[in-house]
Amino acid sequence: MEQALPAGNSALSDDHLVLLDRYWRAANYLSVGQIYLLDNALLREPLRAEHIKPRLLGHWGTTPGLNFVYAHLNRLIKQRDLDMIYICGPGHGGPGMVANTYLEGTYSEIYPDIGRDADGMRKLFRQFSFPGGIPSHAAPETPGSIHEGGELGYALVHAYGAAFDNPDLLVACVVGDGEAETGPLAASWHSNKFLNPARDGAVLPILHLNGYKIANPTVLGRMTDDEIRHLFLGYGHEPIFVEGDDPPVMHRLMAAALESAIERIQTIQNEARDGRGSVQRPKWPMIVLRSPKGWTGPKEVDGLRVEGFWRAHQVPIADPRSNPDHLKLLEQWMRSYQPEALFDSAGQLRDELQALPPRGARRMGANPHANGGLLKRELILPDYRDYAVKVPHAGAPEAEATRVLGEFLRDVMRLNAKARNFRIMGPDETASNRLDAVFEATDRVWMEGIEPYDVHLAQDGRVMEVLSEHLCQGWLEGYLLTGRHGFFSCYEAFVHIVDSMFNQHAKWLKVSRALPWRRPIASLNYLLTSHVWRQDHNGFSHQDPGFVDLVANKKADIVRLYFPPDANTLLWVADHCLRTYDRINVIVAGKQPAPQWLTMGQAATHCDAGIGIWPWAGTEVGGLEPDVVMACAGDVPTLETLAAVDLLRRELPDLRIRVVNVVDLMTLQPKEQHPHGIGDKEFDAMFTCDKPVIFAYHGYPHLIHRLTYSRANHDGMHVRGFAEEGTTTTPFDMVVLNELDRFHLAIEVIDRVPGLATAAAHLKQVLLDRLQEHRRYICAHGEDMPEISNWKWPYGTGASDGG
Amino acid sequence: MEQALPAGNSALSDDHLVLLDRYWRAANYLSVGQIYLLDNALLREPLRAEHIKPRLLGHWGTTPGLNFVYAHLNRLIKQRDLDMIYICGPGHGGPGMVANTYLEGTYSEIYPDIGRDADGMRKLFRQFSFPGGIPSHAAPETPGSIHEGGELGYALVHAYGAAFDNPDLLVACVVGDGEAETGPLAASWHSNKFLNPARDGAVLPILHLNGYKIANPTVLGRMTDDEIRHLFLGYGHEPIFVEGDDPPVMHRLMAAALESAIERIQTIQNEARDGRGSVQRPKWPMIVLRSPKGWTGPKEVDGLRVEGFWRAHQVPIADPRSNPDHLKLLEQWMRSYQPEALFDSAGQLRDELQALPPRGARRMGANPHANGGLLKRELILPDYRDYAVKVPHAGAPEAEATRVLGEFLRDVMRLNAKARNFRIMGPDETASNRLDAVFEATDRVWMEGIEPYDVHLAQDGRVMEVLSEHLCQGWLEGYLLTGRHGFFSCYEAFVHIVDSMFNQHAKWLKVSRALPWRRPIASLNYLLTSHVWRQDHNGFSHQDPGFVDLVANKKADIVRLYFPPDANTLLWVADHCLRTYDRINVIVAGKQPAPQWLTMGQAATHCDAGIGIWPWAGTEVGGLEPDVVMACAGDVPTLETLAAVDLLRRELPDLRIRVVNVVDLMTLQPKEQHPHGIGDKEFDAMFTCDKPVIFAYHGYPHLIHRLTYSRANHDGMHVRGFAEEGTTTTPFDMVVLNELDRFHLAIEVIDRVPGLATAAAHLKQVLLDRLQEHRRYICAHGEDMPEISNWKWPYGTGASDGG
Repeated sequence: MEQALPAGNSALSDDHLVLLDRYWRAANYLSVGQIYLLDNALLREPLRAEHIKPRLLGHWGTTPGLNFVYAHLNRLIKQRDLDMIYICGPGHGGPGMVANTYLEGTYSEIYPDIGRDADGMRKLFRQFSFPGGIPSHAAPETPGSIHEGGELGYALVHAYGAAFDNPDLLVACVVGDGEAETGPLAASWHSNKFLNPARDGAVLPILHLNGYKIANPTVLGRMTDDEIRHLFLGYGHEPIFVEGDDPPVMHRLMAAALESAIERIQTIQNEARDGRGSVQRPKWPMIVLRSPKGWTGPKEVDGLRVEGFWRAHQVPIADPRSNPDHLKLLEQWMRSYQPEALFDSAGQLRDELQALPPRGARRMGANPHANGGLLKRELILPDYRDYAVKVPHAGAPEAEATRVLGEFLRDVMRLNAKARNFRIMGPDETASNRLDAVFEATDRVWMEGIEPYDVHLAQDGRVMEVLSEHLCQGWLEGYLLTGRHGFFSCYEAFVHIVDSMFNQHAKWLKVSRALPWRRPIASLNYLLTSHVWRQDHNGFSHQDPGFVDLVANKKADIVRLYFPPDANTLLWVADHCLRTYDRINVIVAGKQPAPQWLTMGQAATHCDAGIGIWPWAGTEVGGLEPDVVMACAGDVPTLETLAAVDLLRRELPDLRIRVVNVVDLMTLQPKEQHPHGIGDKEFDAMFTCDKPVIFAYHGYPHLIHRLTYSRANHDGMHVRGFAEEGTTTTPFDMVVLNELDRFHLAIEVIDRVPGLATAAAHLKQVLLDRLQEHRRYICAHGEDMPEISNWKWPYGTGASDGG
Repeated sequence: MEQALPAGNSALSDDHLVLLDRYWRAANYLSVGQIYLLDNALLREPLRAEHIKPRLLGHWGTTPGLNFVYAHLNRLIKQRDLDMIYICGPGHGGPGMVANTYLEGTYSEIYPDIGRDADGMRKLFRQFSFPGGIPSHAAPETPGSIHEGGELGYALVHAYGAAFDNPDLLVACVVGDGEAETGPLAASWHSNKFLNPARDGAVLPILHLNGYKIANPTVLGRMTDDEIRHLFLGYGHEPIFVEGDDPPVMHRLMAAALESAIERIQTIQNEARDGRGSVQRPKWPMIVLRSPKGWTGPKEVDGLRVEGFWRAHQVPIADPRSNPDHLKLLEQWMRSYQPEALFDSAGQLRDELQALPPRGARRMGANPHANGGLLKRELILPDYRDYAVKVPHAGAPEAEATRVLGEFLRDVMRLNAKARNFRIMGPDETASNRLDAVFEATDRVWMEGIEPYDVHLAQDGRVMEVLSEHLCQGWLEGYLLTGRHGFFSCYEAFVHIVDSMFNQHAKWLKVSRALPWRRPIASLNYLLTSHVWRQDHNGFSHQDPGFVDLVANKKADIVRLYFPPDANTLLWVADHCLRTYDRINVIVAGKQPAPQWLTMGQAATHCDAGIGIWPWAGTEVGGLEPDVVMACAGDVPTLETLAAVDLLRRELPDLRIRVVNVVDLMTLQPKEQHPHGIGDKEFDAMFTCDKPVIFAYHGYPHLIHRLTYSRANHDGMHVRGFAEEGTTTTPFDMVVLNELDRFHLAIEVIDRVPGLATAAAHLKQVLLDRLQEHRRYICAHGEDMPEISNWKWPYGTGASDGG
């Protein structure tokens, strides 16, 4: 374990220390100014109430520490010409990130209206947390940021995501001790088991123990150094401690700690890269920085402790606009930084301080990795048609859709192996989800020991498996945000674990898309499989199709939902998703053997439209409206719908049935609400204006109602889907429990089509009897009746089967 | 740090070792039988294909380890008369839990059909993962379980939740090494900072490193003992290692380890409880058990490694029904346990083995703590009316709703202090959410060091704050499931972090309610505050009202959604929720100063109905239908609706407006879909059948459409809510950005009421101009126009203000 060198040994000269301290003070000054000031930015006149913002919004407590780290990283970058980005875990310390990018010049380059002069500084202050201005957190608007940090817990996974496949990149990551209490962050420390020093860049975690959250001490902040040391040695790190509150001492300690850390990192990387022998997982350095919360701010306000306590968390002096004593205290605080010694009369940072930060793209606010779209290269994709399942007759061959997709992904992996810009994430489920063909092209990355009998583990694997959806999601976000591509396959039910991370990423994308300087990044692609209808062996806890409901809450520009009914449609959809950018694509598809419906040509036409009538499946008569529309979205609902059609065709040959299949769920929405929505005319032509629509849907039924509620025939929509009924049972019993099975669908047709209730009363009874028979059979035999599990579509695809 | 005693020092006699091993073999035998056998349960005849289940579903890999632990805990309980429950983190090892509760007799007591004889064993085997039988996981159906474990990560928080305020309880918690990779579990180890050895029970974590997940080694499984030791010392534990694969050696090691652990726990507790000096956070013991995955199962199948590898995870021998070699292998495996030495000719566990487990309620399957409703005592509640805000005129006083609630909760805390059965959870937000009156009654629990300047921290505090929604939720679940009560207040946006935990708890409740022997437990009560409309200072990342959408997906019996519009309604709702059981109640209410509408009497009447016309707010004329219904749900939408009504009343005095306020969102659903739903007649009488309804709703608008889509007037519902627009701005600008403000609402009335588009064209333009004016004003001044933020309802409450 390394400790920071004693102060005397630091390479930091006394002169440089003074400069560094002034630079830090400048950042602190600008941070306080953003929180408080409307005007009088340079304090050229006494501070008056009207200079103060009417609403004081921002977080001071974490900010001086963030500024301290930023200033020291600047020095390190410049000294060693490092390629470094800064992940600000306590993203609510936004004023610090803005202050630093302003000081280094990147802010004014991106936002020329905020110049590097007195007027620019005034605008910089005014815009912060101000209507029409910028948000209070490190946001997409903040140069150099790939991390908002409003929802705590994801700093370190984002940092690792950025470092993967970026061998020359160093990702400095400040982890707050509040954030360190979260589950995702606590697991993130194990990311070092997946980072290959020969191939990947490095992450330098800086655990910032300022001791307090909003109103409490932090758990890690109150742990002893001894426990902290054990904990991080256990996580596989060598902690270097920097502790104190006296700035000169702290500058020396921090400079030495960073030098020590970077030298250790470079040693690790050199050893891993010189080709001598195998790479062992190294003990990576990390820094534990204990500094006071609200450091350099007011020690007390109204007799209550502020610096070094949680009262420094947000706005330490509450009402300077109305309280003259507080106004004076604020002025004293701000003048304690000696602004006149930091900025010249024009409001420019003094030359000797301007000389401190790195130049050009080495500035952390200008590093292209933090605006990943700048570096993004298009993914090379094979022709998805080459992987097509041959479908001579609809329903005739069985295939496992995800297994077919695995072959496609294998070759995506191969074609982009040189570019090193594609990874597949999954919580220990790549093989379980039957994507195992990818292991022909690569392995799972694994930096722990590998035993002779291990299978598809390698230090240079490109599949990332860990039993944490949080880590999969966070790594992928960091990877995408730095300009690369990826694919996340997940059990459908457990993707809810990352609901909140999805939310935050969607919010990031929404804001980013409105910023012209932020270049588009690759979409986040989910494959949700091992889905609700085929978790019959794991049971109820594994049965939840509700993630797509959450997704549908987000802005239409951002989200897409796909339910390919078979392997060929899945191929088309996956190919399409991998070509998109700035989106979140959710694909729901099963992994079990299932009938195939469309030839590749038919699949392409169908998916391109996103929705369509399957004329070969229905029994329409040219020129006449159908009696009923049987719609379906999802592989299992499509199967049950076609089986129901088969039942009805046999018994009610004159019934005019139309079958509509929906791949792209957003087509159901009106055009005005979603760019993929189809027009009302087209919708009405497909679903009719008044005929019953029996809609078999993969998930919770209301989503279909929600998407179609303003369509003419919404009263006619009868949706069946998951009704929150499930257990460990047979596949067919699962659909029966939720009344999504062929019998219930056919019965609903009888109930809804005028006249059939009487005309087909006997058939209805037969169908009800068969449901009883099914129940008796499975309770006796433990598996579905052969006539159900072996059912095949008997009619071919008719005229349109030429694709 | 303690190590297991060398084998020779164990108190385990050679005779007892042999018995213990036989008991373990019996559990293993029953586990394998459940996975495989339909019949021939005792292997009295050669195993034949027809004895094998057609579908083999279950998880073997973790099960022998779980059985090993269970057998040893039985010994410990009996030896020392311990009150202990067993949390099975790898809940998919369900066969083990079932086997053990069957062996100890609890299973047959609860399910008399599954007797303790040959026929009972046959049924026990057959029902497992079989239609009409039991699920494959440790489920509500499993005696002694409070933890399903299908979604991994929550074992340890559940264990701590169970231990709080149960000083005599010992919670043994097996944490799988797969689960240990998850975020929530990684953070859960810090729970020991919140456990008071004087007041609470103890948790004994048993980290089961069997080395593998579904298809990978585990991160912790491949870490060295040295790293594991550091990690857990860092977490504040003293690890005791039990490692190996030779059963006799392992029995001795495990027995010694458990004895050592229990003695250490008892020492800690005695020292904390004898009243000598202050309690320091102790180093609690834990056990690290390294044993082979699929221990005692087949070593190899088809030449591939199975025992001690991930291939043992589910069903190690795949197709014994169709593969005679595999059938033979299975038979060998099962006979290796020597069933004839374990069970007598009647199929009963042999007497000497029946003597091993504890008796009665000491059996872990029969411990009442694992069926918490048995122990639940009603919460003592003060009269909520005593906390009422006086409302002489509607809208006249301002109050912070959650602050008022805080006073009520303070007294709930006081009244139940002796019973020690009520806790409040919050992620560092109790004060931020303005519930700080509770600190007059208790403090935050904190077992780390406490400084003189700390505020409301104490070792015996009953408020639990940690910056992890996962921990708050998990602790509370464990606390409720063992028969106590609680309240979880959370920032609205970040409750999504526990979406998935909510799902699992809702599923648990749904299944439990159908089991007569499971007694009702207290409801899980959420207060979602710091909500979307008043996160103007933290911005977009803190703005998401979508949790209720997820909640609405669950079974109607389980979930309730409340949107009290002011303090008095919040009091009524909170009181109501604390009286309910087996539910999940979500209350959404703001913390900011806001107008108060209803007297306590009015509030009680209104909340009791859940929905109602506010006659004092509208401008109806007796006997005539209104021209428009202005409906609202949520505090901010109610405010904006009434302000819009005020605008309209001034300018269009002849317009007949009806105001409907919704507190209980489920009233909107049809009666058939939710027990709180109102009848169609009542609904139509309130909302009319054809008049426009302008519905201002707190969250994403579609939820209102979804709940009302089958109502007569659903075409007339025009819902406004959160449209995913937000940033750091003023409170009123937030509603404007989402077009939920008074001006947009009034404009929608003009647009929707026939004739008004022309008649009130001028007014519409005036309103549009005022929106422009608002924008200019806030961009200039940074705060809302006084006329907006100071707006007051000018009309009183008319005739009905007598409550």
